[in-house]
Amino acid sequence: MTALPDFTRIEAMDAADGLRSMRERFILPSGLIYLDGNSLGVASHAAFAELQKAATEEWGQNLIRSWNTAGWFDMPLALGDRVGRLIGAAAGQTVVCDTTSINIYKALHAAMALRPDRSVIVSEGGSFPTDIYMAEGVVSTRPGASLRLEGVDAPSIEDLIDGTVAVVLVNHVNYKSGELRDMAALTRKAHEHGALVIWDLCHTAGALPVDLDGANVDFAVGCTYKYLNGGPGAPAFIYAAERHHGDISQPLSGWWGHARPFAFEKHYAAGEGIRRFLCGTQPILSLRALKGALDIWDEVDMAALREKSLGLTDLFIALVEEKCAGHGLELESPRDRAKRGSQVSFSHPNAYEIMQALIARGVIGDFRAPSTLRFGFTPLYVRYADVWQAVVILEDILRTGAWQDARFAVRAAVT
Amino acid sequence: MTALPDFTRIEAMDAADGLRSMRERFILPSGLIYLDGNSLGVASHAAFAELQKAATEEWGQNLIRSWNTAGWFDMPLALGDRVGRLIGAAAGQTVVCDTTSINIYKALHAAMALRPDRSVIVSEGGSFPTDIYMAEGVVSTRPGASLRLEGVDAPSIEDLIDGTVAVVLVNHVNYKSGELRDMAALTRKAHEHGALVIWDLCHTAGALPVDLDGANVDFAVGCTYKYLNGGPGAPAFIYAAERHHGDISQPLSGWWGHARPFAFEKHYAAGEGIRRFLCGTQPILSLRALKGALDIWDEVDMAALREKSLGLTDLFIALVEEKCAGHGLELESPRDRAKRGSQVSFSHPNAYEIMQALIARGVIGDFRAPSTLRFGFTPLYVRYADVWQAVVILEDILRTGAWQDARFAVRAAVT
Repeated sequence: MTALPDFTRIEAMDAADGLRSMRERFILPSGLIYLDGNSLGVASHAAFAELQKAATEEWGQNLIRSWNTAGWFDMPLALGDRVGRLIGAAAGQTVVCDTTSINIYKALHAAMALRPDRSVIVSEGGSFPTDIYMAEGVVSTRPGASLRLEGVDAPSIEDLIDGTVAVVLVNHVNYKSGELRDMAALTRKAHEHGALVIWDLCHTAGALPVDLDGANVDFAVGCTYKYLNGGPGAPAFIYAAERHHGDISQPLSGWWGHARPFAFEKHYAAGEGIRRFLCGTQPILSLRALKGALDIWDEVDMAALREKSLGLTDLFIALVEEKCAGHGLELESPRDRAKRGSQVSFSHPNAYEIMQALIARGVIGDFRAPSTLRFGFTPLYVRYADVWQAVVILEDILRTGAWQDARFAVRAAVT
Repeated sequence: MTALPDFTRIEAMDAADGLRSMRERFILPSGLIYLDGNSLGVASHAAFAELQKAATEEWGQNLIRSWNTAGWFDMPLALGDRVGRLIGAAAGQTVVCDTTSINIYKALHAAMALRPDRSVIVSEGGSFPTDIYMAEGVVSTRPGASLRLEGVDAPSIEDLIDGTVAVVLVNHVNYKSGELRDMAALTRKAHEHGALVIWDLCHTAGALPVDLDGANVDFAVGCTYKYLNGGPGAPAFIYAAERHHGDISQPLSGWWGHARPFAFEKHYAAGEGIRRFLCGTQPILSLRALKGALDIWDEVDMAALREKSLGLTDLFIALVEEKCAGHGLELESPRDRAKRGSQVSFSHPNAYEIMQALIARGVIGDFRAPSTLRFGFTPLYVRYADVWQAVVILEDILRTGAWQDARFAVRAAVT
């Protein structure tokens, strides 16, 4: 193993960082090392500027006329195309709307309608839970449908895929471990058995490049408030490959997905293409903050982003394992950088208290029950020096036993 | 008929208006008479203040910690209770989330699950179309289910209710005519046949008082961006009577509705009470603008609101029918004030062009195909003097034929 860099070398890494200027676009609270962009990304000047304009000019002054004059009506598709570029989707296949949970529901129904002679959904026991819950919701509305879970019904998802499977719903990056699945290989495997695939990109979009079109993916969903920095609860996105567009049906058939939404017809008629995943009226203010955040992304080279991301996570793992050795931390994320998203997780029996102590010292990561310390590394605003500083503080907390402070022992409802 | 008031009398009516001071809370664009609050309500200083705080302090500075410290997690329920007061719902029965369309989907599924031996949904052919479209979506997921429409399958909704009907989905105020249904009577009629009722309150909430609990209503939904002034696309609300809470199930079973959302369990377990209508992560910035708007509503007496609303619509009808007589306008809204919401519609063969001419002169109402001029009267910020002025301009446009200007003849995609 090569020797760890000293702090002078760390500063040189930041100085040489091609994404360095991006940090200025964001609003970083002073005194904070924010390693939780995989839960809620930070605000940006561009997001605030768009939000301000949407609120004061468009709502405040132009009111109802803004549906046309400010492009509110076309915004879900316009923003969808901009997210599309970041996930390898050619234009016209991605739309921004609703929540990830609801988009999972739409995608599952659409996929099952494309495989009417099949009844099985395959997903992951270790999925972010809402994916499973939504699959259970879909199963509840489709007589004969059932759900098979990796880690429950078989050890690996590949073992669950057979000729009865309509659709595989799977996370590209695991929310807890940060482990990356092979999108092209699993999609191919599903297609070989006649099944479709929905990729959940919540921890992918803005964290690393993917190529949905190139991997022949069927559907994808994801959120915009993590690595994309769209703002708390910003609307989610949904992708459908163009080859399916003519055959997509899904039961959340609201006015915005209608072929002629202003004709006030008495029956639903699905709009063209990806538009038919739209349903009801979207939260324009939240959408507009996201628009500002995406303005920044238009300038980002995704290969450079990935390189920086791996540089940050490689460094964090190496520093923690050297400086915090002997304190009981176990790496939960893949050591192989090719299999790692943009986060690093370590387990520790006292993970909760340690994370509380870190937060009290200005290092924001998060805790996932029962024993995971989770750290997200957003390449646009996290510096190598932040990684160094976070490890210095973590080592101090472990060495001094500061996490044993009684005030860190009370588990809050929300972590 | 009593003589029409002259302008001096109009000014006296405004001076005597008990809600007069409310207007100062809102941001009214200068030179505009805004009679479209039934499509998008105007912005308020309180909404902007909350939005600013949510963006700059809570997102910008406190980031992920705001889920606890700023009450984001409890906000859908807290705001739900405040909407509840305006619609006659005791606390714990209303939650703010998602869109009206999606909440209709949830309510329909929940109602049908409560009547498993029945298969018919009854709704209105003259409904705001998304209600019908969502009902069609629900029917598509429930084998054997069907939809009967008033005006298609029978002239009156009462004639469609029999022992096969699981649920009646009906608008309290018709979006086009402003006609009000008798909530207590129709609910009673449905219950006599063993059916449940969902009331769509999009044109009711903030327009006039209703008493959901008193009328023994089962479910209700509605939007918050019309008379409640929550902002463009602000999240909607859903109400369920407490007597149903133990038995509610609906398939949009996302993480936020889980009994233990932070335990990351592998199976869905519905939360308590109205909470089980929550699904995915809500758009916090849009929610917070709504919170500001609801701060104003906490001070409003709903009986005084109704009295002002009827004063405005009575005056508008009387002035139009006197001053614009002979120009082909026909009242589409109920003349009987007890049957009227807070809007007035007139039909005219050239309704589209006339509305364009009005908008060009600063009077914002809207057009509904094929021939309706629709005017909404929001009692919190519309003055009697505005009503007078709008009619003066309308009369001038009709008398001079100004609506025949060629630029008003092009029908835009969105009106």
